[in-house]
Parts: sequence; C-alpha cells; structure tokens
Amino acid sequence: MSIEQGTTYTHEFSFTQDEVVKFAEVTGDKNPVHLDEAYAAATMFKRPIMHGFLGGSVFSKVFGTLFPGEGTIYLKQSMSFMRPMYVNAVYEVRMTVKEVNKEKHRANVETNIVDKATGDVVISGEATVMNVNRI
Amino acid sequence: MSIEQGTTYTHEFSFTQDEVVKFAEVTGDKNPVHLDEAYAAATMFKRPIMHGFLGGSVFSKVFGTLFPGEGTIYLKQSMSFMRPMYVNAVYEVRMTVKEVNKEKHRANVETNIVDKATGDVVISGEATVMNVNRI
Repeated sequence: MSIEQGTTYTHEFSFTQDEVVKFAEVTGDKNPVHLDEAYAAATMFKRPIMHGFLGGSVFSKVFGTLFPGEGTIYLKQSMSFMRPMYVNAVYEVRMTVKEVNKEKHRANVETNIVDKATGDVVISGEATVMNVNRI
Repeated sequence: MSIEQGTTYTHEFSFTQDEVVKFAEVTGDKNPVHLDEAYAAATMFKRPIMHGFLGGSVFSKVFGTLFPGEGTIYLKQSMSFMRPMYVNAVYEVRMTVKEVNKEKHRANVETNIVDKATGDVVISGEATVMNVNRI
C-alpha cells in the first residue's frame, strides 16, 4: 500500500495473557505487573496490564507488513503510554500520515492506539519510516 | 535500585534468531527483513536485522526489573533507530538519569543502546518512568 499525506490507516488487534507471557519470556521483561495476578491486584491497575512495548509493537507490525508494508525501514518512534492496556480488550491502531518526503522516501506518521470500547487513546506517538518503493 | 540525577546504569544483552522468530510470532511483525535470509541478502542490510522494537524492549526490561525495578510504570519512550541490530551481537543498554521529580516520583532518562564491538549507538532515545517507592 502506498503512503500519501493525509491518509489514515486503521488496524484492529487484541492480545491474550498467553501472548503477554511469551512476550515477557522473549524480551526478558518479567515485571510482575504484567504477569502476576495477585501482585497486580495490589496496584492501582487492579489486574495485570500489558507491556507498553507489546502494544507499541503493533505499530512496527503495521508499518512492516501492512501500511506501507514490505520494504519498510523503521527510523523513529515515540510513545506516550496514556492508559493501561489489558489482555482480551479490543484495540485499534490509528495512523495518519502527517508529512511525506518523496525524494527521501520518508514519511512522518501520527500513531495512536485506541480502546475500541471506550474510544480512549491508550498510546499516542509519532513515527518516521522509509520505504524506497512505497513512499 | 533507586534512581538519582546523573546516575548511569548499563546492562549487556544479546538476542538469538530463535528469539527474533518468537518475537515475530507474538507481535505479528513478520517483516521478512527480520526472518528471511534470502530476502534480507537482497536489501542494504545483507542479512536479517532484528526488530527495532525487540531491541527497544530491553529499555522496558531494565526499567521494570532492574533500574529502578519493581513498581516501575512506563510513561514515555522515544526511539531513533540509528543503525541495524543483528542477532548474536553483544549490545549494552546505557541509561543516564537526566531529571528527577521526587514529588511526582518521575524521572527522565536518556536511553541508548550501544554495539559493544564498535561503540556505535544503534538506538538512541529518552524515557519517562514513574516509581512511587524508588523515585
């Protein structure tokens, strides 16, 4: 898919607790707030929250495989973790292309993750990607 | 570990291709530049590169489990992917505390990943974390 200024792309996703456990194993990020129900119950979140980086990794998935897809090189990503993310909740990545540099094949993209049930933004941020064939 | 202005914390790490495959499975980020040797050989990288988000996830691991560790809540992270990262190479997270707000229990931390063999920064960025007991 080609990327043009003003284009908005959305992609729905959800993670399971099993996937959170696998993410913790691969990355080594075994913060108990993600893994231990009893521990999480005593925090302000009341139940385990997802790793922010697991949520944010969906930006990378979208850029690398969907929008613009094959050939994408990731240059920058910022993320503000606005609200906790929970397993089995349905989220949507919402990306809006802010600026395109066709000569350098680069685009700046606003990247948000929205809780489908509440409409709340849970991660907000911005990315810069390069794709020689699609930007 | 408590966090004070000016403190530097380092943590060495390395990933295997097996871990890259697992990360691709969990996150859904199956960009072939990370997974397909023949595909990667035809790119400017010549061989598969790691997901930037897998490299960056080590920031989350360090904050959540080591520095400052237990109880850390991630508020912000920016990342510039300066150079490709490769499996089996040895990298080091280098974090320097830039600003501490004891009242809000928050710290701004410069977060870099350095290739141990070359000294090159491969990911540069900045984070904001909160920890009620350790900041």
